[in-house]
Amino acid sequence: MRLISYITAGKGHVGVMRDERNFVPVSELHADVPGSLKALLAQGDAGLARVRRLAGAGDAPTRRIEDVVLAPVVPDPSVIWCVGLNYRDHVQETGRSLTEKPTLFLRLPVSQVGHLQPMIKPRVSDQFDYEGELALVIGRGGRHIPEADAYGHIAGYSCYNEGSIRDWQRHTSQFGPGKTFQGTGAFGPWLVTADEFGDPEQHELVTRLNGNEMQRTKIDMMLFKIPYLISYISAVHPLAPGDVIVTGTPGGVGSRRTPPVYMFPGDKVTIEISGIGTLDNTIVAEA
Amino acid sequence: MRLISYITAGKGHVGVMRDERNFVPVSELHADVPGSLKALLAQGDAGLARVRRLAGAGDAPTRRIEDVVLAPVVPDPSVIWCVGLNYRDHVQETGRSLTEKPTLFLRLPVSQVGHLQPMIKPRVSDQFDYEGELALVIGRGGRHIPEADAYGHIAGYSCYNEGSIRDWQRHTSQFGPGKTFQGTGAFGPWLVTADEFGDPEQHELVTRLNGNEMQRTKIDMMLFKIPYLISYISAVHPLAPGDVIVTGTPGGVGSRRTPPVYMFPGDKVTIEISGIGTLDNTIVAEA
Repeated sequence: MRLISYITAGKGHVGVMRDERNFVPVSELHADVPGSLKALLAQGDAGLARVRRLAGAGDAPTRRIEDVVLAPVVPDPSVIWCVGLNYRDHVQETGRSLTEKPTLFLRLPVSQVGHLQPMIKPRVSDQFDYEGELALVIGRGGRHIPEADAYGHIAGYSCYNEGSIRDWQRHTSQFGPGKTFQGTGAFGPWLVTADEFGDPEQHELVTRLNGNEMQRTKIDMMLFKIPYLISYISAVHPLAPGDVIVTGTPGGVGSRRTPPVYMFPGDKVTIEISGIGTLDNTIVAEA
Repeated sequence: MRLISYITAGKGHVGVMRDERNFVPVSELHADVPGSLKALLAQGDAGLARVRRLAGAGDAPTRRIEDVVLAPVVPDPSVIWCVGLNYRDHVQETGRSLTEKPTLFLRLPVSQVGHLQPMIKPRVSDQFDYEGELALVIGRGGRHIPEADAYGHIAGYSCYNEGSIRDWQRHTSQFGPGKTFQGTGAFGPWLVTADEFGDPEQHELVTRLNGNEMQRTKIDMMLFKIPYLISYISAVHPLAPGDVIVTGTPGGVGSRRTPPVYMFPGDKVTIEISGIGTLDNTIVAEA
């Protein structure tokens, strides 16, 4: 099942994709289905099973994604943990060293946009870079989750463009500000449930800028694997339904190219992951 | 005016302190006053003026803070930005260099507790350190706020114990995980409105562990001043009512002492700031 978060008539809703363009507007049709994906995930398997049944009804009406505003897959997660330096070719291009523990930092929800929505190049920088990544969304919460149980806590997966403002990221030792400018990250196109996505390591990620391939990796090249990340983070605080972990980018980022490549208004950037689909955004200038 | 966030009968409320122990439970008494301080601040000056009037009524009943659970001053801010390395004596004790821009990182709301509530020493570490800091809360939102206007965006101030798990903070270059363990930070005792607090630089901060003075500074020793911090952060994303900026700790942290001093269950830690009062917490072990 592929779930979307979207906004229509000023209100947040949850839908289920029927094909690449048409979806069943489940929470619009059924007032007792939460319009928030986070709230739906908090209902556990029963909530998802019901949505699956409602969306599968042959007579369920559909809408087109062009007719609504797609929101980030989870618009309002309690936490968005990002992993830096999690693919060897990216570690090498940054000139940094491998670490014994995962390099983790936070993004804010205000930094996210959805599929087909503009990503915003800030006024204060000309160093807006892409980072194609696999994101996972927590379904079942918990603390001190053992690695062996970790996959059972994942609701599903999506693509993430962990857009970065490189000069601000390097103002000090801490990446924080450069990683969370308003509207610089993209999260979509939809959540593919874990049962449908299967083994993440079998999938492949490709980032394209204006149609040119910039990054390509098999997910199995990840240094700190998904079960380890979930176990490590859940030692820090309880993970909750809707929490997001963005698992790191491979080599090929724009800032490490010669000459560097940055994104400017009008550029088109896509993140494609096999088994999910393609997250597609165009850059606009901050108003 | 001194505002508290608290929980009673499972519900969040806003109150106004009458003296050090008694408060007027404004949102309990008046159903149209928001029980969320963030929502109240979003009403702007009119909302605060009304609360001031309601709390000032001579016949307003009061409650005692011991009879409720005090929440973090803002329990659910959209963002908690923390400033590292913002006092020269602390920069020196860490062996780091002065930076040209502020060192900023994020905490999560799940890491906060209120005044008189236990701070939680995690299972996975014995390096739980205190950091006494002045926190400010945004009243009026905005982006690209000029330094000259910055003070006009501040609703008020409080004490913050920016508790840190030092080994996890140093796992990699990024402070993230070590700065946001569940229940390791404290935010209180209350919000003192900006009109009552006056010029932050005239105030003094003292951290005590089991009654022993560990940190003392005048706020005017801050390297990156409050107007600059607000201007810098608001270039990254719009600031919103209830957003929190924790402005940095002075020298004297436990991890830089010889031998190091860490907090363990039963320890009492206080952060006192003149013009605000004393944030008081006892350490407990993670269950």
